Amino acid sequence: MNKLPLHIVKIGGKVVDDETMLTRFLDHFAKLPGRKALVHGGGKGATELSTKLGIPTRMVEGRRITDDATLEIAVMVYAGWFNKRVVALLQARGCNATGLSGADGNLIRAVKRPVQTTDYGWVGDIESVCAAGIHQLLEAGFVPVFCAITHDGRGQLLNTNADTIAASLATAMVPLYATELSFFFEKNGVLTDPTGDQGLIPELTPQTYQMYRGQGAIHTGMVPKLDNAFAAVQSGVEKVRICGPDTFTEGGGTLIVRPHPVQP
Amino acid sequence: MNKLPLHIVKIGGKVVDDETMLTRFLDHFAKLPGRKALVHGGGKGATELSTKLGIPTRMVEGRRITDDATLEIAVMVYAGWFNKRVVALLQARGCNATGLSGADGNLIRAVKRPVQTTDYGWVGDIESVCAAGIHQLLEAGFVPVFCAITHDGRGQLLNTNADTIAASLATAMVPLYATELSFFFEKNGVLTDPTGDQGLIPELTPQTYQMYRGQGAIHTGMVPKLDNAFAAVQSGVEKVRICGPDTFTEGGGTLIVRPHPVQP
Repeated sequence: MNKLPLHIVKIGGKVVDDETMLTRFLDHFAKLPGRKALVHGGGKGATELSTKLGIPTRMVEGRRITDDATLEIAVMVYAGWFNKRVVALLQARGCNATGLSGADGNLIRAVKRPVQTTDYGWVGDIESVCAAGIHQLLEAGFVPVFCAITHDGRGQLLNTNADTIAASLATAMVPLYATELSFFFEKNGVLTDPTGDQGLIPELTPQTYQMYRGQGAIHTGMVPKLDNAFAAVQSGVEKVRICGPDTFTEGGGTLIVRPHPVQP
Repeated sequence: MNKLPLHIVKIGGKVVDDETMLTRFLDHFAKLPGRKALVHGGGKGATELSTKLGIPTRMVEGRRITDDATLEIAVMVYAGWFNKRVVALLQARGCNATGLSGADGNLIRAVKRPVQTTDYGWVGDIESVCAAGIHQLLEAGFVPVFCAITHDGRGQLLNTNADTIAASLATAMVPLYATELSFFFEKNGVLTDPTGDQGLIPELTPQTYQMYRGQGAIHTGMVPKLDNAFAAVQSGVEKVRICGPDTFTEGGGTLIVRPHPVQP
């Protein structure tokens, strides 16, 4: 059976925050042919609103704790203002965007992250993606635009990593579509010079990824994104790449590939 | 052709703000059989957030002016926090709720209210409802939950009256469904004693409505709701009623009926 192509694109927080980069991205995304979906990260909006409201940001080991007030702010900014704004901007470009959280249509269900040494609060780890529901939306001509909010099915909303959402969505759609996943961020791919714009790595296998990590050549901020990217490609997503403003349209950036088979 | 029934329910701002009333309503709404949709008003959340952020509320002739900051707050609170919270609570009750603004799927398009004596800012008057898109969602098993935010199709979000959204949705669905519209609010129907809980008017025609208005017996706050209710019933919505906590489930409240035919 020839599966139809589906392109899932995730945009990072710095894209969300940069009006010029966002507009340019949306121009390109709107023109992508065929079935597609967008996943967006949060950006600085939630932190800025927290600061204005005098709500302290609690961090443990570099990670934000999502308490009640922080969750409400995340839902307002990510699922509310940013999601609807992107939807309206895509609609203006002739793209039938439909904003969604994981709670909507029970499309992404998560569980509150179990407390081990740290209670991260209302942070969700993805449990299931409803591929059938997303399939119905895609085939009805809707373009899903997911924010990084999920739910636990028992009435609780949960803050969830956007890279993980994108990878989980792409993986879940593999049985139904020939799925491509692009992580679009402010750089043009994985770089060996993370402080600048040079040294684009055109292709990463698990082996070369470990090699670059061992050399300290890959920025630690890239690690969760790359772990998600490798998980997606291992689960049958046909093409996974890390790309940016100058590499998105021509299929460039860093291609994530399955391990090279061991030579006999 | 026998059309399938569709029940559209609008809940008012005071229901949104009252946890007990809201929970009780959602218990009932989740159990309603067949195709259904929910429209929710805003409640005090947006005003409270404006106050916390020190953003002044500008009122002209008793109406709020929606400037840039007020629109952002309305979208955050209505389309973000409240919409997703209601969706999660309905999902927990086994109802496949899917939160939507009018921008999503281009389902409700509006135009910025023309400036006559007053510029109300980013307030939208409804231009069109995409019945085909809503039909697709309903037939795919989704339960639309609309907030009172629309868009103009050119990238601008707009604040729109929730009663008008409910009436416009119900009217737009008339060719496809046998449509029922319920306005659920904190009272049990239209009352001749608006300050108390007595004097439920079981039925209103345009004639008896004008009579009660002439007597000053109907609270002025009810007028926009009733104008929307009469517009819906005149446009072919099969049953329109104003109801509340004790009258919702048994089909009670105030029934809005078409004008009695003139006797020959």
